[in-house]
Amino acid sequence: MDRNLLLTPGPTHIPPDLCAALGKPIIHHRTPQFQQYLKEVGEGLQYIFQTKNHVYLLASSGTGTMEAAVANVVNKGDKVITIEGGKFGERWTELCKVYGAESKVVPVKWGTAVDAKLIKKMLDEDPSIKVVFATLNETSTGVTADIKALGEAVKGTNTLLVVDAISGLGVVDFKMDDWNVDVCVAGAHKGFMLPPGLGMVAVSEKAMKVINACTSPRYYFDLRKYEKAYGKTDTPFTPAINIIVAMVDSLRKMRAEGLDNMIARFSRLAKGVRAAAKAMNLKLFAEDYCISTALTPILLPDGIEAKKVVKAMRDVYGVSVAAGQGDVENKIIRISHMGAVDEFDMLVGIGCFEKVLKQFGHKFELGAGLTAAQKIYNE
Amino acid sequence: MDRNLLLTPGPTHIPPDLCAALGKPIIHHRTPQFQQYLKEVGEGLQYIFQTKNHVYLLASSGTGTMEAAVANVVNKGDKVITIEGGKFGERWTELCKVYGAESKVVPVKWGTAVDAKLIKKMLDEDPSIKVVFATLNETSTGVTADIKALGEAVKGTNTLLVVDAISGLGVVDFKMDDWNVDVCVAGAHKGFMLPPGLGMVAVSEKAMKVINACTSPRYYFDLRKYEKAYGKTDTPFTPAINIIVAMVDSLRKMRAEGLDNMIARFSRLAKGVRAAAKAMNLKLFAEDYCISTALTPILLPDGIEAKKVVKAMRDVYGVSVAAGQGDVENKIIRISHMGAVDEFDMLVGIGCFEKVLKQFGHKFELGAGLTAAQKIYNE
Repeated sequence: MDRNLLLTPGPTHIPPDLCAALGKPIIHHRTPQFQQYLKEVGEGLQYIFQTKNHVYLLASSGTGTMEAAVANVVNKGDKVITIEGGKFGERWTELCKVYGAESKVVPVKWGTAVDAKLIKKMLDEDPSIKVVFATLNETSTGVTADIKALGEAVKGTNTLLVVDAISGLGVVDFKMDDWNVDVCVAGAHKGFMLPPGLGMVAVSEKAMKVINACTSPRYYFDLRKYEKAYGKTDTPFTPAINIIVAMVDSLRKMRAEGLDNMIARFSRLAKGVRAAAKAMNLKLFAEDYCISTALTPILLPDGIEAKKVVKAMRDVYGVSVAAGQGDVENKIIRISHMGAVDEFDMLVGIGCFEKVLKQFGHKFELGAGLTAAQKIYNE
Repeated sequence: MDRNLLLTPGPTHIPPDLCAALGKPIIHHRTPQFQQYLKEVGEGLQYIFQTKNHVYLLASSGTGTMEAAVANVVNKGDKVITIEGGKFGERWTELCKVYGAESKVVPVKWGTAVDAKLIKKMLDEDPSIKVVFATLNETSTGVTADIKALGEAVKGTNTLLVVDAISGLGVVDFKMDDWNVDVCVAGAHKGFMLPPGLGMVAVSEKAMKVINACTSPRYYFDLRKYEKAYGKTDTPFTPAINIIVAMVDSLRKMRAEGLDNMIARFSRLAKGVRAAAKAMNLKLFAEDYCISTALTPILLPDGIEAKKVVKAMRDVYGVSVAAGQGDVENKIIRISHMGAVDEFDMLVGIGCFEKVLKQFGHKFELGAGLTAAQKIYNE
């Protein structure tokens, strides 16, 4: 069996032409040839981030970009807000603790999104709060936060808004500049259809002032070095050359489809998967008002273990989905629909999920999930 | 013209089978399939590092691994020795400064190697020195240090020896355990014939105690997290999947050739390039007793600019070598012979170098460099 369909929320499926680009003969990074790639990738990323800010390229996976964000804006003793509600929100809290921040942790029930009004109130009550750390798309729960509303809350204040957009960028609606986001971090292995190992950090002018004054120790992730190199169409350290080269092609594909069309595609795919889950007598883990269109979190019936479902789908049928994380590790499965996937990939995923759930004894009408999705996809 | 021969000291040439491996369909990293790769890569790296220690895989380029070393063993106010003598030695000093160490900087004339007796004396005089930071192969000058002698100097003391082996590992002789090295950092894009973006850090038991007690802020580079994940054949953060997958094949090639044979190959290639340079009336930049066999640094005649030589060789003929760095940026060229190169690649490099130097007006007998190298390679 050769199938290995990745419907995991990162890494995502890499289409064959991008696989081929990853295997191109390597070129040196201090050359005019590579500078051309850097230039094109930089402009393409500005389009995807919807920003005029510089977007720096880091050789790291997602957490590295999150640490870069924290290490560059947080000084020991600074007051910050971290919004939790999932494993990646909690990661902001952990990182801020490492850098000695005084964190006001905003707990959010898993499967729901933060209320921006609460953040606004906290900022009104204490304008000395320096940074709000948020998550565009919480991969662990399948929840998309209202970043636009959070941006309204920091607008006109001295507070920065830092957003982890790792699994949301190029997938769900996001507008860095219009929404007043100051630092936005992302990774290559979600919406960009590339392997992990290339991170991106975009920085507003407002944030750059804070970065220049920040005293926390950092070197590899020192964004001042990236800004300096950016001005010379260069990188401060040896970059992830082969992923950047492949990103030229990835961004061309994304621009050819257009951001709005991509977002609409993922939204449609999500709608089908949600309909399938309901038709299979399953509940969604995230609330309707905030459920992500990047991935669908599905609550499994009592007694059916997520890890076993994942294992059977992958090892027997070659379809990879993800179990949960944290407290719901073994209770939910997450089916991703971001990157290079279409409705037929979703039918394969749903078909496989139906088959395995049936084997595990869940009661539903075989084909009901497929039919529900097919109806949506045929609209 | 399709030629793009990389004789640069990183990235190095990637052979076609490894290019193909880099473009394999991606697999998810939290799977038994990927764990098999992690296991094989871990064992292969222990062979190349010549160690029984655990070798952690970081999604970062070389400087990231250097920062990992510093952030995990240096506390604010610690006394350390940093050995300079080139751009990468200086990087240890810069990193230690960032983490608040009290550095005793040992300056070394560029093109020469540190005298281990001096370090021994410094440690005897001040046993409170916590770490010695050294460079196995100083890429900026083409000098290999006597790490074995430095290891003797720290043996039986509480001082750690941290070695940047980024451009030396798998290329020049190195024995982590026999030589008492406590932390050794490396990268995929030199001797391993892979793209940049995968770093490695090996840690001794002696170092692990210091790491566990270290209070410097770190998260993405926190080696305690890597050790914990290593025990579960896992990585703490999303790894550089496609480079790790290709490294399975790279390490198989390296093991098939054998470490001693590889080192002998590079030594022979270096000998030919050195002979060629001398036959072309050129001087080597590094002293004979310490000149690296990973790359040959060649001093250009007055009036011939290294950057122009590099540009002509690359843009006209498709052969990439490197100019110098720092003070000698425009005065030396560096021809690398590490990774997937053989004597015929060297002949192409020397032939191209001859041609360009002739065009720039340097006086020597055309073919003299090629002949000198050919004689060595025919021995």
